[in-house]
Amino acid sequence: MDPNLRDAISRELGQARRILLVTHVGPDGDAIGSLLGLGGLLRSQGMEVTLACEDPVPESYGFLPGSDEVVQAASGSYDLLIGLDCSDRARMGDVVSGRLSALPLINIDHHVTNARFGDINWVDASAVATTQMVLTLAEALDWPVTREVAICLLNGMVTDTRSFRTSNVDMAAMRAVLRLMEAGASLSEIAQQALEQRPLASVRLWADAVGRLRVEDGILWTQVTLEMRRRYGMGENDFSGLANSLAGIREARAVVVFTERDNGLIDVSMRAAPGLNVAQAALRLGGGGHPQAAGCTLEGDLPQIQERVLNEVRQSLSQQQAGAA
Amino acid sequence: MDPNLRDAISRELGQARRILLVTHVGPDGDAIGSLLGLGGLLRSQGMEVTLACEDPVPESYGFLPGSDEVVQAASGSYDLLIGLDCSDRARMGDVVSGRLSALPLINIDHHVTNARFGDINWVDASAVATTQMVLTLAEALDWPVTREVAICLLNGMVTDTRSFRTSNVDMAAMRAVLRLMEAGASLSEIAQQALEQRPLASVRLWADAVGRLRVEDGILWTQVTLEMRRRYGMGENDFSGLANSLAGIREARAVVVFTERDNGLIDVSMRAAPGLNVAQAALRLGGGGHPQAAGCTLEGDLPQIQERVLNEVRQSLSQQQAGAA
Repeated sequence: MDPNLRDAISRELGQARRILLVTHVGPDGDAIGSLLGLGGLLRSQGMEVTLACEDPVPESYGFLPGSDEVVQAASGSYDLLIGLDCSDRARMGDVVSGRLSALPLINIDHHVTNARFGDINWVDASAVATTQMVLTLAEALDWPVTREVAICLLNGMVTDTRSFRTSNVDMAAMRAVLRLMEAGASLSEIAQQALEQRPLASVRLWADAVGRLRVEDGILWTQVTLEMRRRYGMGENDFSGLANSLAGIREARAVVVFTERDNGLIDVSMRAAPGLNVAQAALRLGGGGHPQAAGCTLEGDLPQIQERVLNEVRQSLSQQQAGAA
Repeated sequence: MDPNLRDAISRELGQARRILLVTHVGPDGDAIGSLLGLGGLLRSQGMEVTLACEDPVPESYGFLPGSDEVVQAASGSYDLLIGLDCSDRARMGDVVSGRLSALPLINIDHHVTNARFGDINWVDASAVATTQMVLTLAEALDWPVTREVAICLLNGMVTDTRSFRTSNVDMAAMRAVLRLMEAGASLSEIAQQALEQRPLASVRLWADAVGRLRVEDGILWTQVTLEMRRRYGMGENDFSGLANSLAGIREARAVVVFTERDNGLIDVSMRAAPGLNVAQAALRLGGGGHPQAAGCTLEGDLPQIQERVLNEVRQSLSQQQAGAA
């Protein structure tokens, strides 16, 4: 990493007494992994940290060491805020409000759409996960990486790449994986816990959603409604796995999955075929992400939202293909 | 690898003029990868080789360099036979019959159930794929690994571990992966081609099969009938992905998928939850495999076969759990 950035971050950390670490709403494996991983590293350095996320830790990450220490609201006084895996300020959710919004902020993230909303912005889109950046920081500052921290960091890399299937996986990433395994993290245990194990009901719900698949102009889309979730007894946690599993369908230029949340908001997950980009459409809809995997959250009537999102994706893809031609 | 084995294999190869390489019927990514990988290595050493498999190379492995050189029947004269990824002699299929059955045979395989049917048997169940063993052999004999060969070898490791999700993935495997990447193989391209990309029809068929899932005594099972395959226009190629995708279901002690082939035979794919073993049941039914992933092929009426297989699996699991208690 850039030595100036390393020194700037190190200086801020050295001056802080109480640090608030926050990751994004609707946390995934990289969000929780980077939160717990950096938290563990800072504690080993004798710092006092609070780990916060507006939403609870998803059940599939309950095996991560320290996952029971994540709080959903931060009270007390802090003198430094670190945002992890958040592409913009809103992603930190209501955890950061009032006085806390005025804290000095270090923004550590690997999303190319990052809005650089911090006082220090360390954004590295070449990292496959924010946890890979946390490992880089630990190595740059000569912090020892314990087995517990290695498990959390490897979890982020495994889940954000769906165990190394995404196009951004390179040798730097795989070397980092090997160092985390050498530090004691078990790749297969993480893959089992975080990726493979699922309740039967969620597989049945997936099959139901696949049964509703529609294909229009090479855009493959489906939905997970409140009614479907109730029928299978499924909470509103992450259905990003569904979008991922559809992303490899040969007939698809893009995949869009609409998930109705308990509060009526609609989560929109988008995936693009190699060479195409859905982050542009997501950004225009107020969201963000990576070129191949992006999303947004919208308010309103499901059919209207579907029409609006599909139009946006269709236009964006047309422009890209016109530009490439 | 054991220096005696290395020397024995090297001696046999040195004496041979024309070598026939054979992999198993119903080839998967490790079968094709080890066939093409060892074939490429031997050719680089100036040897004359024929690469054979009774069944055609599945479409998803058509991107592997040399995949169009695999023949489905071997004519001509040979003086050495090498079986790759075959757990017993029958797995080599009708390619090896008549005079060819009498050839000196080197058996290279990573299945723990291997029947040691060769004149030289190199069986290493600690390797995640037979291609990992081929890399070990190349390194032991100081053979250079070209980019083309590295792609084929990495393909076997990626597919047999479902991109590093199986419980046998260790640091030795990940170090081998890194060496293959250093030799020029792209992990993400292999994952895309071999694991992610699928036709829409196969996803629809998957959803249909999930809709038919039954759970009895913790054994989760379903079927892909000829009629279902016709409805979705799917060939009889590998449906192992279906069994794999169900293996992580929390409620399942074991998963069994029955697939009806064009010739009426029934392919049975079995998966076990961690700590349980389906290879024992598969062996008793005339098949083989790994503790967590095994299979067999049976002849007869589908309902009767289902009853017989489910009984065998049920008994085998009961004995294991009684033994563990």
